[in-house]
Amino acid sequence: MSAIHIALLGYGTVGKGVYQTVQSHQKKLQALLGKEVKIVGILVKNINKHTKPDEDVLLTDDFEKIITLDQLDVVIDAIVGTDPCFTYLQQAIKRGCHVITANKEMFAHHGGQLKQLASENGVSLGFEATVAGGIPVIQTIKQLLNVNNVDKVQGILNGTSNFILTKMREENLPFASALKLAQEKGYAEADPTNDVDGYDAFYKAVILSELAFGEAPNWDESIREGIRGITPEQVEIFSSLGFRFKHVASIERTVSGIQCTVKPVLVNVQHPFYHVEGVQNAVSIDGDIVGNISLQGPGAGMLPTASAVIEDLAHINRKNLPEAFPKQKPEGNDASTLSFWAIGGDVNASILPTPIEVIDRIHPNVLIVRAPEETKYAIHLPNVHAYQILGDVAFRGAVLN
Amino acid sequence: MSAIHIALLGYGTVGKGVYQTVQSHQKKLQALLGKEVKIVGILVKNINKHTKPDEDVLLTDDFEKIITLDQLDVVIDAIVGTDPCFTYLQQAIKRGCHVITANKEMFAHHGGQLKQLASENGVSLGFEATVAGGIPVIQTIKQLLNVNNVDKVQGILNGTSNFILTKMREENLPFASALKLAQEKGYAEADPTNDVDGYDAFYKAVILSELAFGEAPNWDESIREGIRGITPEQVEIFSSLGFRFKHVASIERTVSGIQCTVKPVLVNVQHPFYHVEGVQNAVSIDGDIVGNISLQGPGAGMLPTASAVIEDLAHINRKNLPEAFPKQKPEGNDASTLSFWAIGGDVNASILPTPIEVIDRIHPNVLIVRAPEETKYAIHLPNVHAYQILGDVAFRGAVLN
Repeated sequence: MSAIHIALLGYGTVGKGVYQTVQSHQKKLQALLGKEVKIVGILVKNINKHTKPDEDVLLTDDFEKIITLDQLDVVIDAIVGTDPCFTYLQQAIKRGCHVITANKEMFAHHGGQLKQLASENGVSLGFEATVAGGIPVIQTIKQLLNVNNVDKVQGILNGTSNFILTKMREENLPFASALKLAQEKGYAEADPTNDVDGYDAFYKAVILSELAFGEAPNWDESIREGIRGITPEQVEIFSSLGFRFKHVASIERTVSGIQCTVKPVLVNVQHPFYHVEGVQNAVSIDGDIVGNISLQGPGAGMLPTASAVIEDLAHINRKNLPEAFPKQKPEGNDASTLSFWAIGGDVNASILPTPIEVIDRIHPNVLIVRAPEETKYAIHLPNVHAYQILGDVAFRGAVLN
Repeated sequence: MSAIHIALLGYGTVGKGVYQTVQSHQKKLQALLGKEVKIVGILVKNINKHTKPDEDVLLTDDFEKIITLDQLDVVIDAIVGTDPCFTYLQQAIKRGCHVITANKEMFAHHGGQLKQLASENGVSLGFEATVAGGIPVIQTIKQLLNVNNVDKVQGILNGTSNFILTKMREENLPFASALKLAQEKGYAEADPTNDVDGYDAFYKAVILSELAFGEAPNWDESIREGIRGITPEQVEIFSSLGFRFKHVASIERTVSGIQCTVKPVLVNVQHPFYHVEGVQNAVSIDGDIVGNISLQGPGAGMLPTASAVIEDLAHINRKNLPEAFPKQKPEGNDASTLSFWAIGGDVNASILPTPIEVIDRIHPNVLIVRAPEETKYAIHLPNVHAYQILGDVAFRGAVLN
């Protein structure tokens, strides 16, 4: 029986998970692909830190040795950072290899170019593992919502920041202590910037935008805000009012283009994200026929991420449906610009800028206002914070339209 | 440009939704399928009750006129009941038409035969709309979880019974009043048997079982239990203990075969179904690589169901991956047979049959026991009820293994 020859770039948690799963699910892969599936080469940074999982596998720190292997059909990318990963994958595609990547930072920057190159070379390009780990959100949008126009995608896309917010609320901890807990559990890195400041979630939002809308948001006009500014006092007040903090990435097609934000928001018990706790991820998709559907599951981890990679592997010989993005922007007013915000701290209505409509004071320190996205950035007052409230909520009979 | 010619069987809510969506999303369908999509015939029961949506469409109560149309490529089934629907679809497949069905009762009974016939005739057979309306659960299992072995699927698959349970709890209503409310809102039929006694959910479970495991459960050995027996007193006691009733369909591969149950169960706040309220549906899937993922969305309604049908339509020319069900049954003990149960009513431990292990009394009227599925049916005591508790729960340090 002929075989499919695979090279694995990176042999950390994800790489090892992929290696294991190819072994454990070999029979199923053979049934699906009609051939034996063999990992023939593994690229690592430091060859002394790793042991070959099998005598026949080439373990090397030299990409040239990987890309010049006699037989090579698929390259699976399980490394981090934009370079040299992007260069490696370009070379692989030009050689005629199918490529599967779990590298969100690289793919957010260069996904468009890689898709183009893969199409020119007639190979497939799988990237399910770049967003929300084991939740098949990429393929749901790509393969299952073809006729629906996707209007909006929102997600809890970073398990680390969600874990921190959960612990801050459950155990009444300040951010620094909850972060330390996440680091002890191995959920957060020594430098947590990527997770807690929203870079990781932003990369994922960019990937979702290119997939759902056929174009990336404007990076400079996007809002990316982390969770470091949230205090135990804020958590306590908003909990007592029925709200939870969630760090939500949102992409939306509006009349003025694609709006992309990553920021902490407030949700109440009616919102599907209210119950998404700890390292779980969730994605909510608005389709213009189906309405809203949401997906929840493990956003990271060895096997969930390997699952996403391996399911992409099953599809390498499959022709995708043509892409059919809606050509026009949505019509009508930009409904997304008005939303409810909770303005907290030392605040009184008279000091707020004029486009802000005050709706209610729901707590001595919290005003509810109806205002556009820009509001928050118009408020430069000491000791004042502003959080958007997501979902269908009404205050004093006020609703959004 | 050549066209894809479609006949629609049935012109009720779902049929009308499909007709509308074909018009509203014509451009996208053309981009995906490369041809114009035309509904050329509509079969109705009583021709006097309907108006042609377009002059060129054949509106008829005679299936012979539909199946002998000069040009016919796809038959979409939006009627109810097993017969004569099954006969119609067999004829359509034999003529070489692709078939898409929203008819769960028919498909639960004859899905296997239709799949076989479609395969012999080289046509596609879409049935996304038979389970959970707009939630793409069929295609998620069929197209996105190919390498994963699906071990268990659980779902809130009937919006009507979930609405009734939600109202019983929220407004402290007896079953009959909540049912009346559902009927007034158009969620329940005059004869609600199909929904509240679990037939509808059972049909869907059968369809999921054939899809995920390659075989149907044994209909006679399956458990199908409705929600009529739940009283406001039970709802109140279990609510006060942190539990909610949910009407859950479950299919699981065990060493002794496929277990299929539809019954009211109790879940606590940790369980993903706790928050699934009103007419929403939800499905939880356990894959052996990815772990648990869950999907939530509208389980019925004109446009969500039309969405499922129309997305199937986009796939008619697409080759599926080969089916690769695991050949062996899972190994080891049948872990599914032991679970926690809440035994309520006039109950004391001494009168329970011996395989039941009593764990705790959490309320004057509620004993928690650890016992096999058969337990419930071993208890034939007046004024005693037994409900399984789903999810990861522990009582007095007792856990399940």
